[in-house]
Amino acid sequence: MSDEQGSGEVRSEVDGRVLKITIANAQQRNAVTPDMMHQLSDALTELDENPDLWAGVICAEGDHFTSGLDMAKFFAPGAEPKPIPVDKVDPLGLTKRCRKPVVTAVQGICYTVGVEIMLAGDIVVAADDVRFCQMEAKRGIAPLGGAHFRYLTRAGWGDAMYHLLLCDEFGASEAHRIGLVQEVVAPGEQVERAMELARTIAKNAPIGIQATKAAANSFIAEAEKAAIAAIPEIREKVMKSQDMMEGIASLMQRRPAEFKGQ
Amino acid sequence: MSDEQGSGEVRSEVDGRVLKITIANAQQRNAVTPDMMHQLSDALTELDENPDLWAGVICAEGDHFTSGLDMAKFFAPGAEPKPIPVDKVDPLGLTKRCRKPVVTAVQGICYTVGVEIMLAGDIVVAADDVRFCQMEAKRGIAPLGGAHFRYLTRAGWGDAMYHLLLCDEFGASEAHRIGLVQEVVAPGEQVERAMELARTIAKNAPIGIQATKAAANSFIAEAEKAAIAAIPEIREKVMKSQDMMEGIASLMQRRPAEFKGQ
Amino acid sequence: MSDEQGSGEVRSEVDGRVLKITIANAQQRNAVTPDMMHQLSDALTELDENPDLWAGVICAEGDHFTSGLDMAKFFAPGAEPKPIPVDKVDPLGLTKRCRKPVVTAVQGICYTVGVEIMLAGDIVVAADDVRFCQMEAKRGIAPLGGAHFRYLTRAGWGDAMYHLLLCDEFGASEAHRIGLVQEVVAPGEQVERAMELARTIAKNAPIGIQATKAAANSFIAEAEKAAIAAIPEIREKVMKSQDMMEGIASLMQRRPAEFKGQ
Repeated sequence: MSDEQGSGEVRSEVDGRVLKITIANAQQRNAVTPDMMHQLSDALTELDENPDLWAGVICAEGDHFTSGLDMAKFFAPGAEPKPIPVDKVDPLGLTKRCRKPVVTAVQGICYTVGVEIMLAGDIVVAADDVRFCQMEAKRGIAPLGGAHFRYLTRAGWGDAMYHLLLCDEFGASEAHRIGLVQEVVAPGEQVERAMELARTIAKNAPIGIQATKAAANSFIAEAEKAAIAAIPEIREKVMKSQDMMEGIASLMQRRPAEFKGQ
Repeated sequence: MSDEQGSGEVRSEVDGRVLKITIANAQQRNAVTPDMMHQLSDALTELDENPDLWAGVICAEGDHFTSGLDMAKFFAPGAEPKPIPVDKVDPLGLTKRCRKPVVTAVQGICYTVGVEIMLAGDIVVAADDVRFCQMEAKRGIAPLGGAHFRYLTRAGWGDAMYHLLLCDEFGASEAHRIGLVQEVVAPGEQVERAMELARTIAKNAPIGIQATKAAANSFIAEAEKAAIAAIPEIREKVMKSQDMMEGIASLMQRRPAEFKGQ
Repeated sequence: MSDEQGSGEVRSEVDGRVLKITIANAQQRNAVTPDMMHQLSDALTELDENPDLWAGVICAEGDHFTSGLDMAKFFAPGAEPKPIPVDKVDPLGLTKRCRKPVVTAVQGICYTVGVEIMLAGDIVVAADDVRFCQMEAKRGIAPLGGAHFRYLTRAGWGDAMYHLLLCDEFGASEAHRIGLVQEVVAPGEQVERAMELARTIAKNAPIGIQATKAAANSFIAEAEKAAIAAIPEIREKVMKSQDMMEGIASLMQRRPAEFKGQ
């Protein structure tokens, strides 16, 4: 349930060995506010640190996983950046990553940071009405939450570039085909299926499971490190561009953007 | 044919330019004993070193590729570890890897070390009755033969984590879809099809073929090195855990394990 | 249109924000001569450097994308090597790589260097009559234009080794399945579809698009660097071999090669 101001929240509840984390801002298509990002970090930190929790599920109430960041609350004049503390789990996995398995259940609109949150986890269950779009470059900027390399941890260069450069909307079957999604279910079933998978994982030996995830990560750690180090330069380039202002203006005026490459 | 004590063996025979290597312990569902692991290493070393051999096939007699390691012979009290000598080819490719192409033919049950042997090779032909399972974490431990990163050399993070964390049983079409398997054939045809592929490879220029394999390996060598270096820490963690004892006890008592994360 | 001597050329034309680059040597199945490789480099350098160009398309006139290098012009006695200058974009992406998105449209025969040119770009649209073959090892040598690692940037180890070691001919659906190709269309539609994709990309903010491509590249840069460094050793090995001479002789005599591994 969203809070009184309709600004949304992230709830979590313990279900046996599984922590179920719910993005709850359905009135605003689960737009993620700075406060919600911190609550998501808190929940993932609890999952990471509590020895009684062996797997987590991230899901969202309502018809849509998320339309993305609440742009006004993040970027409007006067908005103060509130970075995730370095000792907390980063929901985007760019600083501290959760050591326990994370299954994400997505449905409906799942744009920009929604894709990045799901790809920072491990296994994805999608309702077949899901609509993915990494649309940052269409809006004058670029993905800053890890999409530029997370697609490559799952798909090949060509399929990754297809969606990152076209900024097209694509569905569950394409996402399943290229490896972004592991299971596709009927809309409404995604959360329960993700919980089932998490409960199955939580029946396995948690030391073995966490050792497997940590060791698997060592295979991509150096490449990820280089790709994460590239983010400040992207940010610098796009945040200073006139095209970013045009992207915001076109969005507010509900018209196509006309970029100039400046 | 198994030896007189029924402890199994690994046979090899030369077929033109191809070395056909057969795991033969069908009475025990091709459980791999320490002696068989050494015989497999010897056969792969012969393939690697003999200039008249240009490709190899690993296959198994009977209805199943392998149920995994013969746990009693490897881990029972008094069992002496017999590591593969560093100058011999490691069937798991963690130390010395075979420089010649290896095609593996799998059928029926292909669990744990069976998957790791097949993924240490290059091309996999599967009978459509194959049943894969990387079940170590279900048994209280974790994969120690390279599964934690070999899945990632073929599939994306999501599909790899799905099978490594769930420890589920999956079939030929899923394995083909995510890239673990290259061809699926009717049961009984997998060995001959693997031999055909190996013979076709052996018609190509062996210097070019081996240079291609070696050069391709340079693309993943650093990542593999890091992932192989992670193995002692996994071993240390899981081998000292109470959950490992529970895994063994539950297996012997044919009941589900109840892990405590300790 | 090919030039008067039928030696072919590479043309380019500006279409809005898109540079359309056409391989034109249809009379010789678009065999790529040393001059054409330089013209392709010039065109890609123009795309890379001209701030008014935001995406490129590489395509080929006629029924086939390319049968490969014009071997006589590259390797016949007296042929002088003309390497691409280091400040120009390398069509194979081994030295300087184009920073703008490149969509490649392929049809009919697309052998050896054709696959390598297409994989040095980003997105591939294939006519469903396309016939891929990385046949170097069948001809006594090995791929020297990056195929040994480009397959691995898109497909897993098993599927990459399958085609690199077998040197088999494969079609659009297999290439799409394993990630080499992003879209399959009816023959004759591939160029226009590639132009549509490039125009769509060129509607997005070019700074964001180029930052995304550059940042994505950081994820694979170290691995690529190692794999590119392996090329001189492959070249040394295969170019000095007797099997290379046998490969050339068998090609000229239109008979199967008989390699000796020497």
